[in-house]
Amino acid sequence: MSSPPGSRALGVVGVGLIGGSVGMAARRAGWTVLGVDGDAVLDQAVERGAVDRRSTLDEVRGADCVILAPPVSAIPGLLRDLAPTDALVSDTGSAKAAVVRAAAEAGIRRFVGGHPMAGSHATGVAHAAPDLFRGARWFLTPTGDTLPGAYAQLTALVRDDLGAVPTAVDPERHDLLMAALSHLPHLLAVALLRVTAGISPDALSFAGPSFRDLTRVGAANPGLWADILAENAGAVHRVTEAFAEALRRVEGDIGDRPATERHFEEAGAAYRALGGILIESSGHNVDIAIPIENRPRVLARVTTLMGSHDINILDLYMEHADTRHAALVLTLDGGAVERALGLLEHAGFPAEVVGPG
Amino acid sequence: MSSPPGSRALGVVGVGLIGGSVGMAARRAGWTVLGVDGDAVLDQAVERGAVDRRSTLDEVRGADCVILAPPVSAIPGLLRDLAPTDALVSDTGSAKAAVVRAAAEAGIRRFVGGHPMAGSHATGVAHAAPDLFRGARWFLTPTGDTLPGAYAQLTALVRDDLGAVPTAVDPERHDLLMAALSHLPHLLAVALLRVTAGISPDALSFAGPSFRDLTRVGAANPGLWADILAENAGAVHRVTEAFAEALRRVEGDIGDRPATERHFEEAGAAYRALGGILIESSGHNVDIAIPIENRPRVLARVTTLMGSHDINILDLYMEHADTRHAALVLTLDGGAVERALGLLEHAGFPAEVVGPG
Repeated sequence: MSSPPGSRALGVVGVGLIGGSVGMAARRAGWTVLGVDGDAVLDQAVERGAVDRRSTLDEVRGADCVILAPPVSAIPGLLRDLAPTDALVSDTGSAKAAVVRAAAEAGIRRFVGGHPMAGSHATGVAHAAPDLFRGARWFLTPTGDTLPGAYAQLTALVRDDLGAVPTAVDPERHDLLMAALSHLPHLLAVALLRVTAGISPDALSFAGPSFRDLTRVGAANPGLWADILAENAGAVHRVTEAFAEALRRVEGDIGDRPATERHFEEAGAAYRALGGILIESSGHNVDIAIPIENRPRVLARVTTLMGSHDINILDLYMEHADTRHAALVLTLDGGAVERALGLLEHAGFPAEVVGPG
Repeated sequence: MSSPPGSRALGVVGVGLIGGSVGMAARRAGWTVLGVDGDAVLDQAVERGAVDRRSTLDEVRGADCVILAPPVSAIPGLLRDLAPTDALVSDTGSAKAAVVRAAAEAGIRRFVGGHPMAGSHATGVAHAAPDLFRGARWFLTPTGDTLPGAYAQLTALVRDDLGAVPTAVDPERHDLLMAALSHLPHLLAVALLRVTAGISPDALSFAGPSFRDLTRVGAANPGLWADILAENAGAVHRVTEAFAEALRRVEGDIGDRPATERHFEEAGAAYRALGGILIESSGHNVDIAIPIENRPRVLARVTTLMGSHDINILDLYMEHADTRHAALVLTLDGGAVERALGLLEHAGFPAEVVGPG
């Protein structure tokens, strides 16, 4: 972009958690941010420093760049309303193929789809933060028709100004990935809770912690998820069909011991190939298990020990063997594991690396 | 039992983690424990104090009580080999209908099936502990043919001597419950990992923490799970069919917003009805979420704060919004929640109860 940084204008349409965080980070990087949303939201957005001032779709059509960050179902309509425009346009929706098609149909030349892998328990501009995207993956979905200049500009914005890690992926494949990694798992949780509740009135009361881990996403926000699933219905359908076939096959092999063992061996290898918690981390992550009594202070002693030696706990969960015995499983950077095991041993908490099944 | 406690003889067949722990607890309660297993295992079991002495199936046939705790696939054969016997006989297998049938066919009059909800990361008598079952649920599966005296004796052994919480359930329903709560979830994890790996070579590297929570059980021990699934094949098949139908229905309703919202509302209600972590706990459990930076010491400060005020953390997990931001979710006894929220607020960690979606 030839104009000096101070004069670049970014339109943000939909100033919630994501749009507000984009605005904060962009303003810090020197953009003038124009917000488009309802009056009450924009009052709050200006006050929070998420946008410089209120604006309209008509005005942001002439900005250097426009990011659409409303609920995903609103994006195709906004693209039609925004056209024609020469601005670099992107969005933050969780499904991409339909959005990319809508942008092409609307004749928006400089469009590249986007999807940040960031969020929060909380929603709304009140919880927006300029560092929300720091180190987070941000999918970009260029196609064969994408103008190279537009793609390069968006990559620079995402990486340099918002602090995220841009990752290019085909729009159709993006949608299949989201279907498998997030959307189908929500359906599985919903269906599993339904079937279990159907066995007997007290069936749910017998559930243990790993059933809870598995069905947690079933308690997600119904309205939000009705929206997300509807926008990615095609990919969700394809992945669900493939899943039903895989389940039929694995279930059908029960009783054939070598086949069942092979299924679990493949699943174990796939599980161990899952993405690390910190994509920034140069090393690999390792889980260690510490048998603990399920009593006050033990957790505190272990986490204090790690913290006081600057060993960062990337993730943790408790595996309950029964009501009194549990293992605390810590995910650590591979480079810190030996030191952590030594410290724990010395403190009377012998731990071990959680190996293949 | 009319004989004085010191003289009661308990045969334990299969002296691993479960059998060894039964032996330790029973010896503490005054039983003389006779172990049946391989020579090396029995050497270790005697040394660990899990059994009083080595024995044989022929000898334990004359004991007061016999507990079969081998791999579940070995139980029907052992019942045939054990008969005829007047001993009170039970087992610890994870599937019950086939075992109950096998006991009846073998003509063992005083049989009641059992299944303790206890275990550990570790296996083998080396990890056995007399308190393994304390406060844990122990399913008992009497039928219409069960002799009341046998059932009463086994209940007393489980509750008074082993410290567990006996819960009676019909054998067929037990197997459906285990299929829904444990066996099917393992199949779901295996099938989901398979489908995701099939989308593209790098698909697994994009997985986030909730996908990891969901597929963790897919990395279970292949040989052990081939065995467990084969023994409960009938119930697993029925539950898998019901699940496939529920999944088809929920997926088919995508695009019908009210129907999808209803599915998630029902799932949310079911999730919130899941069993508490501590079945002993009189109250209910509540999850609270604490937004935290993913950095050393924060975990330690929160867990130390809870521990120093004697607030027991029943379960915890981290929900990752992105690579730097996370919420630490603590499961607490309902009665401790207000106090915990106050302490956290005061310490600069405002937390909130995780409510419906």
